[in-house]
Amino acid sequence: MNAGNADHLTDQLQSLFNDDPVREPAVETLLRDRHPADIAEAMESLARPDALAVFEIVDDERAGDVLDELDPDMVRYLVGQASPERIADLLDRLPMDDAAEVVAEADPEQKSLLLSRLNERAPADAEEVRELLSYKEGTAGRLMTDKFVRLSARLTVEEAFTAIRHADPDVETLTDLYVVDPVQEGNRREERLIGVLSLRDLVRAAPDRGIDEVMARDLITVSVDTDQEDVARLIEKYDCLALPVLDRNGYLAGIITVDDVVDILLEEDTEDYLRLGAVESNERPYLSMGVMGTVRQRFGWLLLLFVAETATGFVLRHFEDEISRAVALSFFVPLLIGTGGNAGAQTVTTITRALALGELRYKDGLRVLWRETRTGMLLGGMLATVGFIRALLWGTGTQLALVVALSMVVIVIWANTVGSLLPIFAKRLGFDPAVMSAPFITTLVDATGLFFYFSIARVLLNL
Amino acid sequence: MNAGNADHLTDQLQSLFNDDPVREPAVETLLRDRHPADIAEAMESLARPDALAVFEIVDDERAGDVLDELDPDMVRYLVGQASPERIADLLDRLPMDDAAEVVAEADPEQKSLLLSRLNERAPADAEEVRELLSYKEGTAGRLMTDKFVRLSARLTVEEAFTAIRHADPDVETLTDLYVVDPVQEGNRREERLIGVLSLRDLVRAAPDRGIDEVMARDLITVSVDTDQEDVARLIEKYDCLALPVLDRNGYLAGIITVDDVVDILLEEDTEDYLRLGAVESNERPYLSMGVMGTVRQRFGWLLLLFVAETATGFVLRHFEDEISRAVALSFFVPLLIGTGGNAGAQTVTTITRALALGELRYKDGLRVLWRETRTGMLLGGMLATVGFIRALLWGTGTQLALVVALSMVVIVIWANTVGSLLPIFAKRLGFDPAVMSAPFITTLVDATGLFFYFSIARVLLNL
Repeated sequence: MNAGNADHLTDQLQSLFNDDPVREPAVETLLRDRHPADIAEAMESLARPDALAVFEIVDDERAGDVLDELDPDMVRYLVGQASPERIADLLDRLPMDDAAEVVAEADPEQKSLLLSRLNERAPADAEEVRELLSYKEGTAGRLMTDKFVRLSARLTVEEAFTAIRHADPDVETLTDLYVVDPVQEGNRREERLIGVLSLRDLVRAAPDRGIDEVMARDLITVSVDTDQEDVARLIEKYDCLALPVLDRNGYLAGIITVDDVVDILLEEDTEDYLRLGAVESNERPYLSMGVMGTVRQRFGWLLLLFVAETATGFVLRHFEDEISRAVALSFFVPLLIGTGGNAGAQTVTTITRALALGELRYKDGLRVLWRETRTGMLLGGMLATVGFIRALLWGTGTQLALVVALSMVVIVIWANTVGSLLPIFAKRLGFDPAVMSAPFITTLVDATGLFFYFSIARVLLNL
Repeated sequence: MNAGNADHLTDQLQSLFNDDPVREPAVETLLRDRHPADIAEAMESLARPDALAVFEIVDDERAGDVLDELDPDMVRYLVGQASPERIADLLDRLPMDDAAEVVAEADPEQKSLLLSRLNERAPADAEEVRELLSYKEGTAGRLMTDKFVRLSARLTVEEAFTAIRHADPDVETLTDLYVVDPVQEGNRREERLIGVLSLRDLVRAAPDRGIDEVMARDLITVSVDTDQEDVARLIEKYDCLALPVLDRNGYLAGIITVDDVVDILLEEDTEDYLRLGAVESNERPYLSMGVMGTVRQRFGWLLLLFVAETATGFVLRHFEDEISRAVALSFFVPLLIGTGGNAGAQTVTTITRALALGELRYKDGLRVLWRETRTGMLLGGMLATVGFIRALLWGTGTQLALVVALSMVVIVIWANTVGSLLPIFAKRLGFDPAVMSAPFITTLVDATGLFFYFSIARVLLNL
């Protein structure tokens, strides 16, 4: 199998679909032995009816995985077009956490139809999907699977090996094995997690030892309500392949595997990255989105920033007399507010990232403020020096050059202060700090920066 | 073990180190049963001599892992302070890819000392570290490990199980098993990879079947020279736990495991994210960096952007007469260039991300240009309408309001064009497209945008 050949596959499919009539056997040959991830990638670049045709040709064994890899829009489209029987059949072949993701992406009316069809096939699986969907999106509860190996603490190492060889073929991982103690809670059978064992520990241990002697009892666990990004950071920090999830009563509810976490990290990072550029993320590949989609994705932020930016007009009109008396003042407007915006963007980016990585907490607020103020003084001072010389070289009078230099220091300190405090406050108020994007800070600093500049000019130049 | 308690641990350690004399047994008690990742996180928040004291108290079994988790600066410090014997001893306990990473982070003179000490202990390991370090940083060759399970294609499933149970206890993963064919190449023994087998496949198969019947022959492989970010994207796309790495002759050189990939994804995403805010990434936690370090991290970009931004001064001086004849022209300067900058930032962020995710290629350049031009026309047109009304409401004459509206359309189209082409050209020229950061585009659009604005004003207002 050649990895990363989806691009080539897309072109080949495209040319087949340009034929009239389409030679289905040729499409079938082309898709044979292709990895589901490549097929999904190619489908997303095709016209929708062609993507549907591909989906109907792919055999059932891979079609479920293809569905799992597609973006939500395409899933909704396919689920709406294909028969609910086939989709339910495909869902049943997927790990239940992935199946739940597909159901979650379907339209509300499709959702209940899929669940009832799945229920006819495999009531236990339908029940699991329903339970997963009862947890909030973006939490550990939505990502977990209950297909993992459970061992009793009373087994020996040899017996554990036998148990693994006869484990449900659907288990998601054999790398981590969970040792549980069954508990009767009302009429539900629950399990308390008492230890974890890696297959490697089992391999190293003598066959006749009890697994309770071999297992680790100090466990890293998360709750069904833990945020998915925190789960990802824990898996990254502790280098594990899976984390057990406990329900609200402390019983073992499922496990989360590293493959889901890798997807989340990429998705959340993309979201944060785009937000920094004031673009809403919508998980669709760039080229598959129409111009109107792109406009929708960007116009909201652009308009909000535009309206905020009109504040600069108020400030400038307020200082109209000063400007007409010294037109040269206006030469430095873009330079001052541009530099203030850049300094603010640097600070807000650094602080937002440090918050996301858990390097900073709310209680560090004052410490951060003091650091950023000093950083602003140093950076502002250095840039002011350069600005002063630049202004003199342009033949600007010493007085005006001094105004520019002084304003530069004040604006950079101000940008650093605002840039450091806003993300921390946003987090404190329960917002994602990434909402305080760089363009937002830049716009905020523009109007206030101009106010400082012209106020300093009015005093120093006696305007 | 309680996850995420490093913060608390830091505070407890801090208060113990404030005592005089320090009660070492108390520190020892506190560190007992702590996860290496938590100890590393706490050490990074302590003063360096205290971090060293902690490092010397941690038992050898966990100290290697602690070293692996620390940031490069701290590693250099510890390697310089502790005895080379102890460090070599710790390295020997780590997987060799992690050991190589620690050696790579040491100073050049420390590096050869460590390698010779490691050579005295375990010549084969030292040889492996040397080989890993011979590959370029950021490539698959630097990340791979040769501690994995190799099976001969002639084994039965039953025999394979026995082989796994007697495998080297240092193997990094038992989840994927590699089926190899030994080849004599001159006086080196090489291995050709012929198949891969998951432990799960083995569990499901009948004990007397040959593993050549069970294994998968269609392999996803990377080369020692593959970029680490591409490796990460492949692991993400194909949901695998490990990828085999082939050397330049096509023989099996090692495997890369998903845990290293999770670290890379986070690191590279942080780098891209910070660069979007014009900050150099240096992998150090925010609070552990001094003010001077922060200034160094930001001043270069800030100065470069400052110098580029002085171009706006040239443009404004060029139009000095126009401004003094119509001071109201200057009221719209920040609004126009601010909006142009925001539109450019949106485009450059979207395109850079699409390039990083492999959704766009160089050959899509013209298609992207045409899409972004249309997007710019729509967005510019809508904002121009809002801007026109806003200007009229301020009592600006219809003529000037028209100049502002027209300039808005031109500037937004221009910003979208520049923002879409620059990242694609950067990639074509072999640069990381993320270098064309949002602040860079913003600055570029500022001066050119002003030129458009005043040229339009000169013509329409007959100035």
